[in-house]
Amino acid sequence: MSDSSAPLLESRDARGVVTLTMNRPATFNALGEEMLDALQAAFDRLADDAGLRAVVLAGAGKAFCPGHNLKEMLARPELAYYQQLFARCSRVMLAIQKLPVPVIARVHGIATAAGCQLVAQCDLAVASTDAKFAVSGINVGLFCSSPSVPLARNMHPKQAMEMLVTGDFISAEQARERGLVNRAVAPDQLDAEVESLLASIVAKPREALAIGKDLFYRQRELGVEAAYQLAGQTMAVNMVAHCAQEGVSAFAEKRKPSWS
Amino acid sequence: MSDSSAPLLESRDARGVVTLTMNRPATFNALGEEMLDALQAAFDRLADDAGLRAVVLAGAGKAFCPGHNLKEMLARPELAYYQQLFARCSRVMLAIQKLPVPVIARVHGIATAAGCQLVAQCDLAVASTDAKFAVSGINVGLFCSSPSVPLARNMHPKQAMEMLVTGDFISAEQARERGLVNRAVAPDQLDAEVESLLASIVAKPREALAIGKDLFYRQRELGVEAAYQLAGQTMAVNMVAHCAQEGVSAFAEKRKPSWS
Amino acid sequence: MSDSSAPLLESRDARGVVTLTMNRPATFNALGEEMLDALQAAFDRLADDAGLRAVVLAGAGKAFCPGHNLKEMLARPELAYYQQLFARCSRVMLAIQKLPVPVIARVHGIATAAGCQLVAQCDLAVASTDAKFAVSGINVGLFCSSPSVPLARNMHPKQAMEMLVTGDFISAEQARERGLVNRAVAPDQLDAEVESLLASIVAKPREALAIGKDLFYRQRELGVEAAYQLAGQTMAVNMVAHCAQEGVSAFAEKRKPSWS
Repeated sequence: MSDSSAPLLESRDARGVVTLTMNRPATFNALGEEMLDALQAAFDRLADDAGLRAVVLAGAGKAFCPGHNLKEMLARPELAYYQQLFARCSRVMLAIQKLPVPVIARVHGIATAAGCQLVAQCDLAVASTDAKFAVSGINVGLFCSSPSVPLARNMHPKQAMEMLVTGDFISAEQARERGLVNRAVAPDQLDAEVESLLASIVAKPREALAIGKDLFYRQRELGVEAAYQLAGQTMAVNMVAHCAQEGVSAFAEKRKPSWS
Repeated sequence: MSDSSAPLLESRDARGVVTLTMNRPATFNALGEEMLDALQAAFDRLADDAGLRAVVLAGAGKAFCPGHNLKEMLARPELAYYQQLFARCSRVMLAIQKLPVPVIARVHGIATAAGCQLVAQCDLAVASTDAKFAVSGINVGLFCSSPSVPLARNMHPKQAMEMLVTGDFISAEQARERGLVNRAVAPDQLDAEVESLLASIVAKPREALAIGKDLFYRQRELGVEAAYQLAGQTMAVNMVAHCAQEGVSAFAEKRKPSWS
Repeated sequence: MSDSSAPLLESRDARGVVTLTMNRPATFNALGEEMLDALQAAFDRLADDAGLRAVVLAGAGKAFCPGHNLKEMLARPELAYYQQLFARCSRVMLAIQKLPVPVIARVHGIATAAGCQLVAQCDLAVASTDAKFAVSGINVGLFCSSPSVPLARNMHPKQAMEMLVTGDFISAEQARERGLVNRAVAPDQLDAEVESLLASIVAKPREALAIGKDLFYRQRELGVEAAYQLAGQTMAVNMVAHCAQEGVSAFAEKRKPSWS
C-alpha cells in the first residue's frame, strides 16, 4: 500500500511483480529531488527483496517522465549542487541495471531528457503508440550528456546524435525500429503487452535471470575473449544450481519443471 | 570425403570452399562433446590450410543446431565438468572468429541456444525463411550467458535481452532486420544465396580478406584513435602486398587482376 | 571566397555554417594528397573558429567521394609512404570528430572506400536517394581496414562485414535503415533536408553542442559507470554555463532564450 500523495506509488502482485508509478502528474512526473530519492529508496529496498520477480516503471497521468525538474535546478545555480544532483540521478539509473530482476519501462505520453534516459536504461521497454521520445535538453541549452550514455548503447550513433543536437521527438514506432523500445502498441494494448512480458519472465527461475542479467551487462564491457571466459564460468555456476538441474531434468523427462 | 556417420561432414570444392555439415539429425545436430570436438578439429586443421577460401557451416536434416546436448550435461552434474564443457564450446566459437577466411552460417529450421550463438559468431549468415532463432536456455533454467556474448554484439541490447529472458523465437526476417543474419530467403533459394556470397568472396584475394577480417575484430575492441592507428598500419601492409599492388595496377590499366 | 580551382571550396553563411565542397569532379573528388591536405588545413583552421556553428561536407560534380587516389598510390610502392598516407587520412577523419560543431555529410552519387568512411565518420549524414555506398577496396585487393573503424561503429557487424568482403554497394535507403545515414531523400530535396538540420542546430547554443559532442564520443569508449561519472560532471559544468542558465530561465519564464 502506498500513500496516494507519495511521489512514487508501489504496488505488488502475488507473483512478486512490483509496479513503481511515478506520481507527480502536475509536473508530468519530473525527476525532482523528491522523485529521485523515492526511486533510489525503492530500488535499494527491492535490491534485497528475495521475492521480487520483475519491476515495471510507469508514470501517472498524461506522461511517463519529462526529465529533471527545471525549477529546482534554477533555484540553486551552484556547480556543487549540480554535481551532486547529476551524480544522484546517475546512481538511480545504475540501480536499475544492478537490480537482479528485469526492469520494464511502460511508456506513454512523453519521455524526454532524463525521462528518455530512464527508458533507455531499463532492461526492456514497451511503448504506447501515443508515446514520443526526445533528449531535448539542448532546447534549453543543456546537452543531454547523461541520457546519451544509455541512448548511445541502445541505437546507432548518428540516430542518437541527431536526437541530441536537434532535440526533436521520435515516435514510438521509430523508437522500436531503432532499438530503444521492444514493442510499440496501441494505447489500450499497453498493459496487456507489458503483462505478456511479465508472464514469460515470472515463468522462469529468478536465480537464472539474476545470474544472466548481471553477466549480460558485465560481458558487454569486455573484449570478446574475456567476455567468453566470464560467460563460460557463469554458465557453469548456473548449471550446477538447482534451477538448471531441475529445468534440464524436467525437459529430459518431458514434464514441467518445479521451480516454486 | 567424409565418413557419412561422422558427426561433421566436410566437403570441399575446386575453389577451396569447405562446407562443414553438422551431421546428427537425430538430435537436430546438438553440440554434444563429439560435435564440439569435431568442430574444433576441423577449425584447427582449416586454420593452417593455405588453399582455404571460405567456410560454410550447415546442419543436416531438419534443423541447423539446437545448442548443447542436455542429456550429456545431466549425466555429469559437476562444476568442473561444466567449466571445461563451456570453455571448450567458447574455444570453438572463438576459432570461427580466428579463421583467416569468412565463415558463413547456412541456417534452416531451428537455431537455438548455442546453435543461435554459432550463427551470431559467424562472420556472415544466410537464413531460410523457415528458420527461427532463440536463446532459449532460460526455459530450462540455464540463462544463455555465452550466447549473449555474440548476440549482444549483433543486435541492440533490449532486443537481445528480450530474447534472453523470454526464450521466445524470432523469425528469419526479424533476425535480418536486427542484424543477426545478412539475408532471409525462401528455402529453395538458400543455397543459391549462400553461393552468391561465396562467388563474391572467392573472386577476392585471400590475403586481403585474411588481413581485413583479423583487423575488423581487433579494432572493434579498441578506442577509435587506437583503432585508426592499427587500421592504418594494416592498410599499409596490405598495400605493399602483391594482392593490392596487382589489384590497383589492374584497375589503373583497366584489366582484370591476376591473383591466382 | 574560394579559388574555384582549389581542391576544396569553402563557403560560409551569415549564421556561421561552413560548407566544404570537395572540388575535383574529374576524379569524383578522390582523396589524393592534395585533397587530404586541404581538408586537414580546413579542419585545423575551423577548430579555432569561435564563430563556426556547423560544417557541411559535400562533393562537386557527379559524386561525393570515391576514396583514395589509386594512381598516386601506385606511383610510390613503399611501405613508409603508405604508412604516412594512411596516418594522414586517419588524422583527417579524427579531425571531424574533434571539431566542436556538428559535421554533416551531404551525400550524392557514390561514396566508396575512404569516401564511405568520411560519411561514417561525420556526426550526421543526409543522402540523396541516388547515392550509393560501398567499402570496395577489396575489389582491388585492398581491404578497407580504416573505413571499417567508423563503419563498424555505425551498423551491425555482419552488415559491415558483408560490405567489406563483397565490396558491393548498398542504396541510400539501406544506408538509412542500417544507421549509416540519418535521412535518404529525393535528389531535389537534398539541400532542403540538410538545411532543416542546420536550422535546428544553429538555433541551439554553440557551447552546449560543443560540450555534448565531445562527451558523446568520449563516453562511448568507457564502461557504463565511468561513462555516467564523466557525463554527470559534464552536465554540471554545462548547467552553470550561461547557455543553460539562460535557456532554463527562459523556459521557466515562457520566453525565448537570448543566446546571441
